[in-house]
Amino acid sequence: MKDIQSLRDHRRINIKKVGVKDISYPITVLDRKNKVQKTVAKVNMYVNLPHHFKGTHMSRFIEILNDFHGDINLHSFHRILEEMKAKLQAEAAHMEIEFPYFFKSPAKNANMVEYHCTMHGSLEKHDDLTLEITVPISPPVPVQTSSGLPESLGHWGVAKICLRFKHFIWMEKLIEMVENVTSHDLKWSAASPKPSTPPLSAEQIARDLGDKLSDNTDISWCSITVENLSQGFSTFATVEWGIKTIDH
Amino acid sequence: MKDIQSLRDHRRINIKKVGVKDISYPITVLDRKNKVQKTVAKVNMYVNLPHHFKGTHMSRFIEILNDFHGDINLHSFHRILEEMKAKLQAEAAHMEIEFPYFFKSPAKNANMVEYHCTMHGSLEKHDDLTLEITVPISPPVPVQTSSGLPESLGHWGVAKICLRFKHFIWMEKLIEMVENVTSHDLKWSAASPKPSTPPLSAEQIARDLGDKLSDNTDISWCSITVENLSQGFSTFATVEWGIKTIDH
Amino acid sequence: MKDIQSLRDHRRINIKKVGVKDISYPITVLDRKNKVQKTVAKVNMYVNLPHHFKGTHMSRFIEILNDFHGDINLHSFHRILEEMKAKLQAEAAHMEIEFPYFFKSPAKNANMVEYHCTMHGSLEKHDDLTLEITVPISPPVPVQTSSGLPESLGHWGVAKICLRFKHFIWMEKLIEMVENVTSHDLKWSAASPKPSTPPLSAEQIARDLGDKLSDNTDISWCSITVENLSQGFSTFATVEWGIKTIDH
Amino acid sequence: MKDIQSLRDHRRINIKKVGVKDISYPITVLDRKNKVQKTVAKVNMYVNLPHHFKGTHMSRFIEILNDFHGDINLHSFHRILEEMKAKLQAEAAHMEIEFPYFFKSPAKNANMVEYHCTMHGSLEKHDDLTLEITVPISPPVPVQTSSGLPESLGHWGVAKICLRFKHFIWMEKLIEMVENVTSHDLKWSAASPKPSTPPLSAEQIARDLGDKLSDNTDISWCSITVENLSQGFSTFATVEWGIKTIDH
Repeated sequence: MKDIQSLRDHRRINIKKVGVKDISYPITVLDRKNKVQKTVAKVNMYVNLPHHFKGTHMSRFIEILNDFHGDINLHSFHRILEEMKAKLQAEAAHMEIEFPYFFKSPAKNANMVEYHCTMHGSLEKHDDLTLEITVPISPPVPVQTSSGLPESLGHWGVAKICLRFKHFIWMEKLIEMVENVTSHDLKWSAASPKPSTPPLSAEQIARDLGDKLSDNTDISWCSITVENLSQGFSTFATVEWGIKTIDH
Repeated sequence: MKDIQSLRDHRRINIKKVGVKDISYPITVLDRKNKVQKTVAKVNMYVNLPHHFKGTHMSRFIEILNDFHGDINLHSFHRILEEMKAKLQAEAAHMEIEFPYFFKSPAKNANMVEYHCTMHGSLEKHDDLTLEITVPISPPVPVQTSSGLPESLGHWGVAKICLRFKHFIWMEKLIEMVENVTSHDLKWSAASPKPSTPPLSAEQIARDLGDKLSDNTDISWCSITVENLSQGFSTFATVEWGIKTIDH
Repeated sequence: MKDIQSLRDHRRINIKKVGVKDISYPITVLDRKNKVQKTVAKVNMYVNLPHHFKGTHMSRFIEILNDFHGDINLHSFHRILEEMKAKLQAEAAHMEIEFPYFFKSPAKNANMVEYHCTMHGSLEKHDDLTLEITVPISPPVPVQTSSGLPESLGHWGVAKICLRFKHFIWMEKLIEMVENVTSHDLKWSAASPKPSTPPLSAEQIARDLGDKLSDNTDISWCSITVENLSQGFSTFATVEWGIKTIDH
Repeated sequence: MKDIQSLRDHRRINIKKVGVKDISYPITVLDRKNKVQKTVAKVNMYVNLPHHFKGTHMSRFIEILNDFHGDINLHSFHRILEEMKAKLQAEAAHMEIEFPYFFKSPAKNANMVEYHCTMHGSLEKHDDLTLEITVPISPPVPVQTSSGLPESLGHWGVAKICLRFKHFIWMEKLIEMVENVTSHDLKWSAASPKPSTPPLSAEQIARDLGDKLSDNTDISWCSITVENLSQGFSTFATVEWGIKTIDH
């Protein structure tokens, strides 16, 4: 009796996905100036299994990671996902990697700045790849004074740029596009019609970034969330445009 | 010239959502034994705005939170979301709260155990509410020995139960249902046909929990992710059943 | 042979301290306005054992915590430590608790603000108790303009006040003392003799807070660390005065 | 009047230390097999200032870090500290770095394992350098059975080894010494005289590790804290031996 119950249940309750999570792993990513950059990532890998699949060998995820020697970037993502799909006999394969990327940004006095990056690739029939970069925002104080005002408003907040490519874009270029807007183009003091209006808001910067990045034809889809951390609590605004790829 | 450009862009790039994030706030939730339990939550509140909406007052989110005096639970969620939708003239309103919930679980020798909970409510035309509870899994060692074996395998992993209700269920009851399976019903040593098979896997426990909870008719939709933390890296398996509500 | 080796080694390598760590526990602390405030703490409890001590029952730490029903504050600390010393036959007892404390600060427009607090008590022959409060610093912009300048520099940084009492001081009073200095008394624009000098520094605010709090005769020892988070990386300065108690 | 008060206070309240904190920085450390390993560190650098010191240029900390190109290891620590002491005219200089170190441990089936490391160097008259490594502990199940018992107790806890050197020791060697004890030498089932005694405790493993490492003459001082994470809360025990260096 129990066995029949168990069989019925197991027909109903199928495993939807399996994988590995939060694996700390040294990786090599593409770097515009130095060709490659070594950093340390948190890696998630998982697959969607066909119905009635009997189980999988979790160790194969790690084997695939080792096979690629941590050489993980926009170019190798597709091959890693194909290997996952084949070796695990899966309907769809997914990989997410989160890592700090270091870049001497011209907008930050060429200091080494850490940018938090996430890549999410998936492969069912077609590929899908999104890249997310978090760029700190330190808006300049708009009024030139000799009264001891600081030059910048400090760590005002962050912009999270999540996008899909039509053509490859260097992360450095994305960072520069964002920092050009937040360092130079915010015309918040002049544009403010009423002095009582809060001069800088997450909504306005999200729109300003959206205006700028939506002109770039290498981007097929983009979501920008700007977060204002300067008030003791966090407020945010999200803009989005473009078309998502078909099969994700 | 610039102004016309700006107008065109602002027509194209509309704000999709705005809100507040990561607000630490003392809250009161329902407790089966003590009626209420005071705890501390991280709160996110945000709305989807209609097109061409000119902006919103972020402080209204905090005002609404203060109006409810942190009295946030399955019963008050709907009223809070209605207030958000009305006060912010929004198309849809969302609130997420994460908090530790304390319960003297019978399966844990009546020790005070912390369960990580998340509630996510949204209101567009209809309500939608999901509850997620993370239950630590400490499977018993199956063989009774007098050779110094521990009684439990320690902190083997966690089960994340995410569900929608047909009828209200106490969190305590959900925890007990999960802990009954992971403390008593895992017949992993006897059931293992081949000694070489790994005796306990995320996949098997996910299926066992799915078999048990899918019998409960108060649950309309459920996703269970079991995470095995006992190997130095994390492996997980997800099962899911039921139907999601219409408008989310 | 092995046993003798083992004995010799165990004479040499004695357990220095044992305890429990990172226990999440609901607690009740003193609140100036509402008498008590319920919050959630991380608790560490540990003891220094006499030489050759054979071991202890870790569960006793939890029992003591349960005996006090989480009623942990400046008044009950001494009794909890005495109980630990007695029940665990220890030479010295220590307890550390970390918790969020909520207070509607007048300097923050009476909004509910979260202050991170830590209490560390120890008892050997004499008591020793330190209290640490982290107060966010959001300095006002010094120049009154109608050009859209923000009123505050946002989340500029934090001040960590760690102190020993001669006489009890409400946490609310400490917070107000700190926020009075950081909200009103920073005369950074006027006081800056050279416009080229960075107008606000961790060093200056640390000294300003030291000047103010060192006048308070209820404080017997104090260390203040001010951290400037506004530059993309964190800079800090520490001042300290007073005498530590004898036996710690 | 105010100025005199201010002068008096500033004589009393001197800056004790200043520095930079939590700087994320790519670094290169020594690797026994591959000569060097690139990883990402959190860096703290600070100095103790002489009395009445007027302030310092925080940017000099970053300059020194850049001068060494992130080449930070047991060999370069002394030169970095000397540079800090000289450039900042300080009485003492301190640097702390925290980083993940990857090593294919023989005890973990040659899988790439992440070890959390911290180095703390200081220079006043003499050098002082401590190294801390956190090694995960996964004790084997002592009884060989064919009944489906797992081979290991999973992620039972961690050992934190903090030490000072007489002579250089590779981190890989330290890790192997620890893992030899926790993987092979724990005779917990046989040694347990009473079946009711908990077979594995933080105290016992701390003593076992102390017995083993105290034989190593390259270590001049060592503190070992073993943390048992297998019970739902964390218990720990600390052993310590050797002599600390003179001037720290």
